[in-house]
Amino acid sequence: MIPRYSRPEMVAIWSPETKFRIWFEIEAHACDALAEIGVIPKAAARTIWEKGGPATFDIERIDEIERETKHDVIAFLTHLAEIVGPDARFVHQGMTSSDVLDTCFNIQLVRAADLLLSDMDALLAAIRRRAFEHKDTICIGRSHGIHAEPVTFGLKMAEAYAEFDRCRKRLEAAREEIATCAISGAVGTFANIDPRVEEHVARALGLAVEPVSTQVIPRDRHAMFFATLGVVASSIERLAVEIRHLQRTEVLEAEEYFSKGQKGSSAMPHKRNPVLTENLTGLARMVRAYALPAMENVALWHERDISHSSVERMIGPDATVTLDFALARLTGVVDKLVVYPERMLANMNRLGGLVHSQRILLALTQAGVSREDAYRLVQRNAMKVWESYQLSGASEVDFLEELLADKDVRAALSEEEIRSRFDLGYHTRQVDTIFRRVFGEA
Amino acid sequence: MIPRYSRPEMVAIWSPETKFRIWFEIEAHACDALAEIGVIPKAAARTIWEKGGPATFDIERIDEIERETKHDVIAFLTHLAEIVGPDARFVHQGMTSSDVLDTCFNIQLVRAADLLLSDMDALLAAIRRRAFEHKDTICIGRSHGIHAEPVTFGLKMAEAYAEFDRCRKRLEAAREEIATCAISGAVGTFANIDPRVEEHVARALGLAVEPVSTQVIPRDRHAMFFATLGVVASSIERLAVEIRHLQRTEVLEAEEYFSKGQKGSSAMPHKRNPVLTENLTGLARMVRAYALPAMENVALWHERDISHSSVERMIGPDATVTLDFALARLTGVVDKLVVYPERMLANMNRLGGLVHSQRILLALTQAGVSREDAYRLVQRNAMKVWESYQLSGASEVDFLEELLADKDVRAALSEEEIRSRFDLGYHTRQVDTIFRRVFGEA
Amino acid sequence: MIPRYSRPEMVAIWSPETKFRIWFEIEAHACDALAEIGVIPKAAARTIWEKGGPATFDIERIDEIERETKHDVIAFLTHLAEIVGPDARFVHQGMTSSDVLDTCFNIQLVRAADLLLSDMDALLAAIRRRAFEHKDTICIGRSHGIHAEPVTFGLKMAEAYAEFDRCRKRLEAAREEIATCAISGAVGTFANIDPRVEEHVARALGLAVEPVSTQVIPRDRHAMFFATLGVVASSIERLAVEIRHLQRTEVLEAEEYFSKGQKGSSAMPHKRNPVLTENLTGLARMVRAYALPAMENVALWHERDISHSSVERMIGPDATVTLDFALARLTGVVDKLVVYPERMLANMNRLGGLVHSQRILLALTQAGVSREDAYRLVQRNAMKVWESYQLSGASEVDFLEELLADKDVRAALSEEEIRSRFDLGYHTRQVDTIFRRVFGEA
Amino acid sequence: MIPRYSRPEMVAIWSPETKFRIWFEIEAHACDALAEIGVIPKAAARTIWEKGGPATFDIERIDEIERETKHDVIAFLTHLAEIVGPDARFVHQGMTSSDVLDTCFNIQLVRAADLLLSDMDALLAAIRRRAFEHKDTICIGRSHGIHAEPVTFGLKMAEAYAEFDRCRKRLEAAREEIATCAISGAVGTFANIDPRVEEHVARALGLAVEPVSTQVIPRDRHAMFFATLGVVASSIERLAVEIRHLQRTEVLEAEEYFSKGQKGSSAMPHKRNPVLTENLTGLARMVRAYALPAMENVALWHERDISHSSVERMIGPDATVTLDFALARLTGVVDKLVVYPERMLANMNRLGGLVHSQRILLALTQAGVSREDAYRLVQRNAMKVWESYQLSGASEVDFLEELLADKDVRAALSEEEIRSRFDLGYHTRQVDTIFRRVFGEA
Repeated sequence: MIPRYSRPEMVAIWSPETKFRIWFEIEAHACDALAEIGVIPKAAARTIWEKGGPATFDIERIDEIERETKHDVIAFLTHLAEIVGPDARFVHQGMTSSDVLDTCFNIQLVRAADLLLSDMDALLAAIRRRAFEHKDTICIGRSHGIHAEPVTFGLKMAEAYAEFDRCRKRLEAAREEIATCAISGAVGTFANIDPRVEEHVARALGLAVEPVSTQVIPRDRHAMFFATLGVVASSIERLAVEIRHLQRTEVLEAEEYFSKGQKGSSAMPHKRNPVLTENLTGLARMVRAYALPAMENVALWHERDISHSSVERMIGPDATVTLDFALARLTGVVDKLVVYPERMLANMNRLGGLVHSQRILLALTQAGVSREDAYRLVQRNAMKVWESYQLSGASEVDFLEELLADKDVRAALSEEEIRSRFDLGYHTRQVDTIFRRVFGEA
Repeated sequence: MIPRYSRPEMVAIWSPETKFRIWFEIEAHACDALAEIGVIPKAAARTIWEKGGPATFDIERIDEIERETKHDVIAFLTHLAEIVGPDARFVHQGMTSSDVLDTCFNIQLVRAADLLLSDMDALLAAIRRRAFEHKDTICIGRSHGIHAEPVTFGLKMAEAYAEFDRCRKRLEAAREEIATCAISGAVGTFANIDPRVEEHVARALGLAVEPVSTQVIPRDRHAMFFATLGVVASSIERLAVEIRHLQRTEVLEAEEYFSKGQKGSSAMPHKRNPVLTENLTGLARMVRAYALPAMENVALWHERDISHSSVERMIGPDATVTLDFALARLTGVVDKLVVYPERMLANMNRLGGLVHSQRILLALTQAGVSREDAYRLVQRNAMKVWESYQLSGASEVDFLEELLADKDVRAALSEEEIRSRFDLGYHTRQVDTIFRRVFGEA
Repeated sequence: MIPRYSRPEMVAIWSPETKFRIWFEIEAHACDALAEIGVIPKAAARTIWEKGGPATFDIERIDEIERETKHDVIAFLTHLAEIVGPDARFVHQGMTSSDVLDTCFNIQLVRAADLLLSDMDALLAAIRRRAFEHKDTICIGRSHGIHAEPVTFGLKMAEAYAEFDRCRKRLEAAREEIATCAISGAVGTFANIDPRVEEHVARALGLAVEPVSTQVIPRDRHAMFFATLGVVASSIERLAVEIRHLQRTEVLEAEEYFSKGQKGSSAMPHKRNPVLTENLTGLARMVRAYALPAMENVALWHERDISHSSVERMIGPDATVTLDFALARLTGVVDKLVVYPERMLANMNRLGGLVHSQRILLALTQAGVSREDAYRLVQRNAMKVWESYQLSGASEVDFLEELLADKDVRAALSEEEIRSRFDLGYHTRQVDTIFRRVFGEA
Repeated sequence: MIPRYSRPEMVAIWSPETKFRIWFEIEAHACDALAEIGVIPKAAARTIWEKGGPATFDIERIDEIERETKHDVIAFLTHLAEIVGPDARFVHQGMTSSDVLDTCFNIQLVRAADLLLSDMDALLAAIRRRAFEHKDTICIGRSHGIHAEPVTFGLKMAEAYAEFDRCRKRLEAAREEIATCAISGAVGTFANIDPRVEEHVARALGLAVEPVSTQVIPRDRHAMFFATLGVVASSIERLAVEIRHLQRTEVLEAEEYFSKGQKGSSAMPHKRNPVLTENLTGLARMVRAYALPAMENVALWHERDISHSSVERMIGPDATVTLDFALARLTGVVDKLVVYPERMLANMNRLGGLVHSQRILLALTQAGVSREDAYRLVQRNAMKVWESYQLSGASEVDFLEELLADKDVRAALSEEEIRSRFDLGYHTRQVDTIFRRVFGEA
């Protein structure tokens, strides 16, 4: 997490202020429950809210105490006692530090997930808009980087929409994974604290109760959370790579928006580089990488060790802040992407109609030619076009004319039958079907 | 995937025989639909089933054709034509190789997931049995590898149960991720094939229709699948590490089952090494590692490139076979684990009652001693016990006696009050509550 | 490791036959040393070589014994005793299984490294040949996928050569990392075996002595080895991605060799897909992924645990076989790569001379125009060319003519001065310098 | 990189101040060379040093310009012009941004490597001191977590020393990998800049010339650098895990230093948790994880894309700062580690002499008993001791007495022969040999 790739709302979730505020709320809600079941005086619980609620926690003071005690929760509680007064001795009764730390971490992750979900909604909206805008914008489909058959730019967007819609569902599941609360004491047995306290705090904070904790909330939950972020990042990379390809000089079917004052290069003023999507490619690598230490964190020793903590102090903010930034950046890129439909057509047509070879192959087969023979007939005409294209980048041989002049082809198909296979509309007949599947409308 | 860590049922899913059988079924079901909508003769569709259904595909023959054509699906179709005869020309009409390959891969993954789910059921059953068997078997809970407060061995099992139950749900979600079918043609536009064919094949094979494919089924699905396996593997590692710790010479609270003929070491015959759980630790590392290339596979170029294929040819079998083996091995380990309740008690008691320090701390606080003072009182007595333990491994100082002899402690608490805090039953009061949460019964 | 991506010589290194042969040699060499220092009879050492040397070890028999003893080295020694007779009792004196296993694994890795080094030599030779062949073949250099300034295809090859030459050195260092021998007994103290035995075996097998082993050879060595393979794989990916880009339909400056019988696609006969380099991209992901469990293997417990073993049984063969295959495949691709110099020129020229913008910028600055002004002058002419290119893919505006017609430009530079900046030779003046740096000659 | 796990000297390397200072030096040295070969006036080069050398670069001003231009190097150059005046137009002549950025990044990595090397020296010194201090401190060696044969604590330290000494060499090699300079212009052809400029700057900054760059310095170098850090981190993890094991309550053979004011737990005052080494375990996971995106960075598109940049902005500081912190923390842990030799002996002796079983096995074999029979004889006595140990944690059966009472054993060995095998000194005879190998002295 570095300022360059951070947005303030997500950064705020990970600030010390937010953390100590959450700690306070966990403790204060726990006091309410402890008072309710008669463990501590009700007046004490009230005092804690009254004094701690409006207080601003002094982070430097807490750090100072921690430097001495080398224990962050004790440092906070000591500072809280300075604010609350004698009633502070009722705080944290029967609890262990991890009850506070783990529940707080989960709350931060839940808030991060909520932000990511709303990022995702904005991204989905942008993709959807561009999808419908370009539903019928023909461009060549490419497999292996090689021209295949026509698609539309809207279909590319539809695929991205369906993919990020899956990512949204995965994020929801990931959010549910870590939306739990544990207030179960030193080794999770509730020996010193009534399970009703946990139930109350969970309810008050919108979390589920952790069915069985062992001082800590089990880290398979967090592994699943961060692994999910890694998958989302990989989908970001996919769309980023698509745009980078489309912006290549030789392709140039779309471009990232290029603002007036922006300079692409200190030396080559004509260059407009897809730096945002290249940047997203790199950010995706980072978010993906964080999944691994999260998985290694699962195998804690016995009831817990603290090896996960340093990892989480880093990847908690790093993964969520980076992914938040990446989703927002991608949304901007999609939203303002400059699309060049004429160039899409021009690129396709440079291959002299080879794009229709599959239809001719089928037509031949359906006309009774064996698969092997049809393949050879198509191939021998196609190769002429291709070889011309290879040299110049724009074929001077026309596939249609070649076919019409090929006696063996004509023995199977009439001119009319051949010409009809060169209709682009043929390829887009099912776009509406696909759109209905993806968007529920076309 | 190596024989040593493989089980036949999972291996069979990845055999060429299975693969070609699935290919055939996809093609034959597609022919049914093509015949139904009038694209090919119904008789042809019947012939394909009649001749191909009972046929054994000759793998060496297919390999031979592939060596020439360098294309596996063409090789298969050529061989199929040798079996089916002239009607074979109606097979694969309007389809592209990936329609077969990707749908087949997903079917294999679905079958693998089903096997993993039934592995998981067996594991859960074993853990559950051991959990109830040892619900009340007291053993020391350890945080940071250091004695904390008592838990029961049943609680350790309950945690494992809850964790693998979550893993089961994740596996179900992962299965759903990849249970899709795509028969959408060269670039996914259905230009040459009616979407109804895809719908029919999907239904016939128990899959969902892929809403939008681009020759290939999008790889974010597979990334999520393999990432999930990585998380499951991490949970396996956790339980394996727990057992390895319990079997350490100094702890020896449980041991992997040691069969009669087995030799632990060529040189030290008394050694019983936790080799199965150490092995599981290593296998977990492998399954986890496979998640990464699966995530890198997502960002295919344009409508597809084939870089994912070599990865999947390896991790498809490697990840599922290894995880299947690991789950089965862990089930055996849990099922036959030798548990030593006496040793659990002996280990706890070696610390002279320090385990009860938290209760004394609370008792002092509740008796009106300040948190800071209570902490110091407990610490000064506890340290004596601890220092004795440090030297010998069995304390000669008794925490209870020290407390009773400490004037400041006695000023706050009576002998009766102190003694009552040394009751072990106190720590297990909520075991039933936790069991009901995890198992629905106690 | 699957047959499709395996070559026999590397596979043979990992066969049971090779393994047991190495085990035998370690044991027999150890017997020589034990006999030399008088621990066992010299006649016994001789008998072991005489009987074991020519013997074929019966792998099924060894497996059978292992199924009973669950210990592979004991199984082998038992079988060896069947071959050698009573003198077999002198074998393995004072040794521990890992002395055999770890030294054998290192020997296998050394042999694998030697094969990889010779693969690398073949690759370097192929790259070098193509580099000199195309030393002066002009093609456009691209940053961000966008045309920048001219380079030559030979320079691309020179970069690849320099990179793989570094990889070769890294492989040599990696080989040295794992070229060690340990015969140090149960916990590495030489309590039961004289260090001279280790020294003798190391010398006999071309290894260095492991300075301190702890039953096992420390796994940081292997982590470094596999991490190095991961880096080599990443360089393979780089060159593979370069070729995939060059083969894109719109670029088509080079193509993988396309054999006569080969079919690119079942449906589109004109397609020539860069499937080999796409395949290499995927294989690189795999080799890279294996680095991680190798690193996780380092932190064994105390003197050793066996968690590394399952990992190594898999990644030992998988990483080396895959990398061997990938290096050989890449060598073939480079060797037979079809290069299209005319198309390289055609692609560059489609941008109407924009490639020379940087030189004009410099000329303006040197003529006294401020950096900011020069930048604006170049940019306003360049943009016209660019906008024409954007629509059609071939600019109808010529940068040179625009510049000549720009009064502000002409105020600073004469026609002659402008024209001279459009000389391509200018960009290749230093190619010889670079070649001399990389190849030692030009 | 977060303050909690950062040390100021390493953090300073990554500050904007340091970065801009390095940028200035690269530009100014380049101007010297440009002046020397007559491209720019010598007076200009002097002015640049005179005005820029003592200047403090205004980071907020640079950021402000960058927000407009969206280009960091142009922003810096613009600010530099504000400082230097008209002669600033001679700065950066023929150079490209990456010439500055990449050379600067390498300089930062070199400085980071130098710091890591001195960290390593401090760590090695600490380990060496503890190794000699405890050269003869007997403790049980453990394989699989199970008691094996005696080692000394000094041997454990010797292993760590040898391992970190290897890591030091790897770090040196990694430093050399990235100690290069590139000043080669837009696509690395030196079209607009004389190679002598690069040579001069390299020499002035203590770097080697990059033989062939392509606007960027090739990223295989950085992949190797960060992979090496990952291996070093794994070795840190190994020693950390060793210490965590030794500090376990049941083992307690060593403890992290526990300062007076420090509180181990808010609830259990007797607890001294190995939190530093647990923390190191987590930090190792992070450093390891950064190796992956570094490897993915290698395959840049054509002459370069900028996807590596975001990765490096994060892992450059994150990996080096974290590793620096981890090495320093580990040095402190080793330096102040509290070692308990009495407890080491006590732990070993709890097993009733089983530790000597291997020697008895050998003695029997040497006395002519067959391997199989000797194994059975040792096993049947050992098992009695072991079973007693299992229940109580301290065997009441003595292995020596059992052996003396076993008729079959006594048929082969006299009492004297048996007793002599129970001498601990036997196991430490070769410690000096190993120390001489590792430290060059004993």
